[in-house]
Amino acid sequence: MFENYFRKKVEAIEVKEKSISQLLAEMSQTAYQGRKLGEAVDVWEAMLKEKDLTIIMGFAGSMSTAGQWKMINWLIKNRFIDVLVSTGANVSEDIVDAMGLGYWQGSHMVNDEALLKADINRYYDVFGKESDYRKMEELMTDFLLTLKTDFVYSSTELLYLFGKWLSKKGIKSIVAVAAENNVPVFCPAISDSAYGEAFLMAKNKGHTLLIDQVKEFDQFVSIGEKAKDIGVIYIGGGVPKDFTQLIAISVSPKTADKGVPGREGFLRKEVKEYYYPHKYAIQITTDSPQWGGLSGCTLEEAVSWGKIHSKGRRVTVYCDATIALPLITHALNERIKARRKGPDLTWLFSQVS
Amino acid sequence: MFENYFRKKVEAIEVKEKSISQLLAEMSQTAYQGRKLGEAVDVWEAMLKEKDLTIIMGFAGSMSTAGQWKMINWLIKNRFIDVLVSTGANVSEDIVDAMGLGYWQGSHMVNDEALLKADINRYYDVFGKESDYRKMEELMTDFLLTLKTDFVYSSTELLYLFGKWLSKKGIKSIVAVAAENNVPVFCPAISDSAYGEAFLMAKNKGHTLLIDQVKEFDQFVSIGEKAKDIGVIYIGGGVPKDFTQLIAISVSPKTADKGVPGREGFLRKEVKEYYYPHKYAIQITTDSPQWGGLSGCTLEEAVSWGKIHSKGRRVTVYCDATIALPLITHALNERIKARRKGPDLTWLFSQVS
Amino acid sequence: MFENYFRKKVEAIEVKEKSISQLLAEMSQTAYQGRKLGEAVDVWEAMLKEKDLTIIMGFAGSMSTAGQWKMINWLIKNRFIDVLVSTGANVSEDIVDAMGLGYWQGSHMVNDEALLKADINRYYDVFGKESDYRKMEELMTDFLLTLKTDFVYSSTELLYLFGKWLSKKGIKSIVAVAAENNVPVFCPAISDSAYGEAFLMAKNKGHTLLIDQVKEFDQFVSIGEKAKDIGVIYIGGGVPKDFTQLIAISVSPKTADKGVPGREGFLRKEVKEYYYPHKYAIQITTDSPQWGGLSGCTLEEAVSWGKIHSKGRRVTVYCDATIALPLITHALNERIKARRKGPDLTWLFSQVS
Amino acid sequence: MFENYFRKKVEAIEVKEKSISQLLAEMSQTAYQGRKLGEAVDVWEAMLKEKDLTIIMGFAGSMSTAGQWKMINWLIKNRFIDVLVSTGANVSEDIVDAMGLGYWQGSHMVNDEALLKADINRYYDVFGKESDYRKMEELMTDFLLTLKTDFVYSSTELLYLFGKWLSKKGIKSIVAVAAENNVPVFCPAISDSAYGEAFLMAKNKGHTLLIDQVKEFDQFVSIGEKAKDIGVIYIGGGVPKDFTQLIAISVSPKTADKGVPGREGFLRKEVKEYYYPHKYAIQITTDSPQWGGLSGCTLEEAVSWGKIHSKGRRVTVYCDATIALPLITHALNERIKARRKGPDLTWLFSQVS
Repeated sequence: MFENYFRKKVEAIEVKEKSISQLLAEMSQTAYQGRKLGEAVDVWEAMLKEKDLTIIMGFAGSMSTAGQWKMINWLIKNRFIDVLVSTGANVSEDIVDAMGLGYWQGSHMVNDEALLKADINRYYDVFGKESDYRKMEELMTDFLLTLKTDFVYSSTELLYLFGKWLSKKGIKSIVAVAAENNVPVFCPAISDSAYGEAFLMAKNKGHTLLIDQVKEFDQFVSIGEKAKDIGVIYIGGGVPKDFTQLIAISVSPKTADKGVPGREGFLRKEVKEYYYPHKYAIQITTDSPQWGGLSGCTLEEAVSWGKIHSKGRRVTVYCDATIALPLITHALNERIKARRKGPDLTWLFSQVS
Repeated sequence: MFENYFRKKVEAIEVKEKSISQLLAEMSQTAYQGRKLGEAVDVWEAMLKEKDLTIIMGFAGSMSTAGQWKMINWLIKNRFIDVLVSTGANVSEDIVDAMGLGYWQGSHMVNDEALLKADINRYYDVFGKESDYRKMEELMTDFLLTLKTDFVYSSTELLYLFGKWLSKKGIKSIVAVAAENNVPVFCPAISDSAYGEAFLMAKNKGHTLLIDQVKEFDQFVSIGEKAKDIGVIYIGGGVPKDFTQLIAISVSPKTADKGVPGREGFLRKEVKEYYYPHKYAIQITTDSPQWGGLSGCTLEEAVSWGKIHSKGRRVTVYCDATIALPLITHALNERIKARRKGPDLTWLFSQVS
Repeated sequence: MFENYFRKKVEAIEVKEKSISQLLAEMSQTAYQGRKLGEAVDVWEAMLKEKDLTIIMGFAGSMSTAGQWKMINWLIKNRFIDVLVSTGANVSEDIVDAMGLGYWQGSHMVNDEALLKADINRYYDVFGKESDYRKMEELMTDFLLTLKTDFVYSSTELLYLFGKWLSKKGIKSIVAVAAENNVPVFCPAISDSAYGEAFLMAKNKGHTLLIDQVKEFDQFVSIGEKAKDIGVIYIGGGVPKDFTQLIAISVSPKTADKGVPGREGFLRKEVKEYYYPHKYAIQITTDSPQWGGLSGCTLEEAVSWGKIHSKGRRVTVYCDATIALPLITHALNERIKARRKGPDLTWLFSQVS
Repeated sequence: MFENYFRKKVEAIEVKEKSISQLLAEMSQTAYQGRKLGEAVDVWEAMLKEKDLTIIMGFAGSMSTAGQWKMINWLIKNRFIDVLVSTGANVSEDIVDAMGLGYWQGSHMVNDEALLKADINRYYDVFGKESDYRKMEELMTDFLLTLKTDFVYSSTELLYLFGKWLSKKGIKSIVAVAAENNVPVFCPAISDSAYGEAFLMAKNKGHTLLIDQVKEFDQFVSIGEKAKDIGVIYIGGGVPKDFTQLIAISVSPKTADKGVPGREGFLRKEVKEYYYPHKYAIQITTDSPQWGGLSGCTLEEAVSWGKIHSKGRRVTVYCDATIALPLITHALNERIKARRKGPDLTWLFSQVS
């Protein structure tokens, strides 16, 4: 019985010169969240070595103002992720920086009324100029005016076209690099961001667009239908996580009762349909399970839903992503030297290419 | 100088028989989050006594599975809120309960693989039957099949019609009671929920709907244009909070540089537009500011953005909403005896009535 | 199988007039932390109805500055707790208030350098005068000067004598009311507070006392030896919780291998000793388990240690105590009308009476 | 005015090969807690370059079971800390590992009743054998039996002697390495740990010791009297942090009204005494300010108390120490190549050497 419990010793870390990857490997032999952070690198590494895996990242929060967006570009370029599901903030506020305007290191203890008067927006300890934000919205509006008003767009189609447009201008934001690499970007609550405001600015110029949530969800779910296996990485929770979870259980309503050919699913008896739990999952969160919400819930809770595979590899790291993401990406960079070849998802853009 | 700091003493609470409202009043004379919870009742009470205020609630999380949804109905019936901005979860999972199917008290320490096999979905310490969830989705699909496929719906139009439809069937869910009381419900990420799955189930039957995010955002922002002042109540963060914040700064792009007649706004100099910060704000959250995200950020941070008024009344309570919401609603019930008359927002439904 | 999972429905709360106790009973039929708070009242009520139970409260933090200390007095007077284990802060800062000096409602967003210059100490959103704090320390020093310098005191002996002394002066602080009711107060890190400073102030007057940690721990553990069963209530974690947990496994080293006559213990095989896990446990905490520390760890973790009984009743509520404590005490007040008769612990004071 | 707000840009991190120190330097140019973690290295580096600074570490939690204790030894050997204030857990549970017994990587989702039956203690996701813990307590008791029963010990004296004793046996635990390097270790709640149990095991053999809290506090405060400036590092909160904060305001009651010669203090007007706020402060915590407790409170709150200097350098990092400590120590190792010469504190051991 003791053998079951006592398989691997905790190894106290000795301080000496080592690489980032090596330190994280040593942290994986310790405990608490240090161990989890180390394990996250191992799980991601395993994903990258898996054949025929579609890797989806849910990317919440306001990470682009915090100097994190170029790491997402790096992940896309190396195809360490195949699909990005993002808040509107993360794929709009990066553009301010990519335009060369940027953000400033401020303080979270400051007189916010004075900031308002100085036309400064605060993101915790980051300061941004309202006028820079507005320049980004104007650029966005310029792009929107190039779109057709009689076409029904999904968010991923719109962001693909935007990416192409930005790329040509040399503005290498996340959607630009994603478009260059044929990585689709979904943004289920797109109007809840600068995009929403730009939609109205375009409308004000007589250019009213149609951004359809049914088409978007249908396209997203279709990725699941065509995938062999899915691995997910959640930076924060919110809509990006919840939406990405849904792909596991919303696959193919047409054929749900027969199952997707070639995929091993789980038959939910009562509803007589096949679910396809995600095989790998990494979750970086600062939320906690006890509040009952989706953002902080354990990956185990998702097992009950058939959203995460009980036999797959999974790890939750309770840590600010501004700490976890730099460490994980740099460790991956040391471990994996070749660009990964992900699944071809260009069919998603067929109507707009 | 001492007078500035020493105005109101902390009063230690004496245990004796008292009403809920009285206890919360006493808590407002203490400290930390107990004080804040007491103050939240006072701020909401002040909102209800204000003439010509539009009260918008952002309602995140999965609160309906947790026995909280009838309190939202009560708030709507009494018009203690005028507009609801919700996650898809909160205005779909309540329907399971309103249908008489319901949820069960479970445990958060349980074998989730066994739950999956028993067709049970877990929400922290709540158990729900997957087959009941499916029945709700089928009901939803039945409704969707009554909609027009050649009409561009906003989420609030769709949920208004759904409410009417449910109400007729005697299923008194949140959207049903909202429709009965002409309270609009917005759901910016509607496909990220049972609605998304029902959209596909309808599509599978050849009934493909169009749910437009531009129309939704336009309608939402129009509320701001017509309001004199706005008060907000955030139960959790996420999209419902962020979206509701935007109304303050997205008002009337047409007239933004002149200002809305009759409203006192704040002129943002650099961008030369008027912003209309929310006058009152209550935030119930379990998130924290230090992670830099919108869900946990302070209401002061929102002052820098022009989203919350620096001179208005505001309070953040760090507390699980399943504790805060019952207490606040019951205290309000003791203090305010008459139904409030909110602003008329029926114009939002004019295209679908 | 379904019967095991589906025993008790979640009942959505209806807003109407009700007592505090009734609302908490209804909350116990919901979910997440609202449910837990409701259950905490039930578990405490069960403790109070148990014959021959010693109830120990671990009381951490700085609750006395926050208007919470009179509720502790009420619990002591009603003998709803039999032993208090406290930080030094909680049983010294209350004295400032009991002396009629008090604390003020301040703000947590303030210029702390300005406060320093104004001789104001800040406790989150509470302001206190440094000079009032000093008056309390001087009173404490006056008392210390009445003690013998050639006697070895435990913290509980010292605090009992201090309570008697304060009580005579009409200063009804926690230790005063505890002494009046023969409730022992332990303070394992007593010098980490105003007491430490007062020890030095007395020493400076040539009056050097001896406060012994061995005697204190021996006395505390002796309570366990004489108890039939123990119930614990943790307001916060820290030393008060950890120390109180130890009583379960430190009972009677003399007789540990035979077991305490009349008590049903758990024989830890390898070490061949009996442990006496606490039968009831309530934990109110704002910490979380994932950090690996004692303050946030689950009561289940304590089961592995033999500190909490696997078959006993236990509940953890993740909530600020300034919210939970007023609610629980007022609900208890409505439910339990008679003073409880706790175990006689006056033998602890035999050397100093 | 803009110059005040816009001094330093947020620099988005580019993924490429770099050292740990370099990555942390880049993180210090981002935002949120990633920035703070980077800044923590800078502040510590500045402390190490300061002449005549006494560096005190407050070390809470159960870090030794989590593979963190050898990093503390490394800090002591390099004299990157001069004084350690610890929980009992951290300077006893390391001994199990130093004895060659150790801990195992377990899971935090496990049947704790089964663990109890298998004589396993759980620390979140770490498993330890109760019998190994007992062996450590027996070793501790063997040492205690070498002490004098007619001598009044402070915790730091006891731990110094224990360190010497362990060192001779080749058991290189924290107190052993501390004794070898003349670094005093304080443990204000020493009986709240294996030490408490060992005190009783010794007593049971007729060997009753005297561990005095007045002497301990007096010795600790004397460090402040002799220091020119103090820098503090808090790993977690609790008693170690609170106790270390006190040194700033408890200096020299004898001479407090005149001030310590050669030190620049802050005269608190009302109480007419000099306080000596800590010049540098680093705080690694997973707690939050809003609960009003000492463990989570900001370093700014401490400014109001005169415990932290308003003009000094300080940084709080909200992060699990099992992530922060390895990163910070390895970055320091890359930056600082020579052992630091700290202040001579051997006078603390004069009575027991």
